Amino acid sequence: MKVEAIQNIEQKPVELAGATATKMRMLVGPADGAGNFHMRHFEVAPGGHTPHHQHDYEHEILILKGEGEAKSEQGARRFRAGDVIWVPPNELHQFVNTGPTPLEFICLIPAPKDCSR
Amino acid sequence: MKVEAIQNIEQKPVELAGATATKMRMLVGPADGAGNFHMRHFEVAPGGHTPHHQHDYEHEILILKGEGEAKSEQGARRFRAGDVIWVPPNELHQFVNTGPTPLEFICLIPAPKDCSR
Repeated sequence: MKVEAIQNIEQKPVELAGATATKMRMLVGPADGAGNFHMRHFEVAPGGHTPHHQHDYEHEILILKGEGEAKSEQGARRFRAGDVIWVPPNELHQFVNTGPTPLEFICLIPAPKDCSR
Repeated sequence: MKVEAIQNIEQKPVELAGATATKMRMLVGPADGAGNFHMRHFEVAPGGHTPHHQHDYEHEILILKGEGEAKSEQGARRFRAGDVIWVPPNELHQFVNTGPTPLEFICLIPAPKDCSR
């Protein structure tokens, strides 16, 4: 069993095209031996955003701090701390920090088969 | 895309043998079409606990509120809000609320193949 404070886990900038002012921590991932799905922590500075993109795998998200806007094919939805977000596979999506404070959320994905995510 | 506040999702008592004062919400699950893994929210009242058990699937956990003790084969570990916990498959585990306020956490599991979890 691993028990670790989020802030003790290394945080790296997200270099993915279309992401701005976004940093990530791998909370539970390949290094832990997690073979089915991975828990990542994201921190987006005010005005920052994740890429506007789509892919063949889902997201399961919980908003921990802050607020923002989730853009999808159905338009934009407001969200805030305490909200859960489900993005089905292949749905276009983007998360924008529209608030005055850092936006923090966890986002889980199925374990990549080719290590490219 | 689904965007929903945790408190708007139905909460049910956990009837599993060995659990006391524990309630659960399915945040993302079969009803959403989530086929790979499921996000559940647990609330354990002071003094309550989850079962002391083991199974062939893993847990990925994030502590949202409160504090407690995680019992495993390596002994007991303290945890509190902001901690992440990884329980590998087949490891004996139990989560006890040792604090004065409700313990809240999310716990993810791979999608059951036989709907029995």
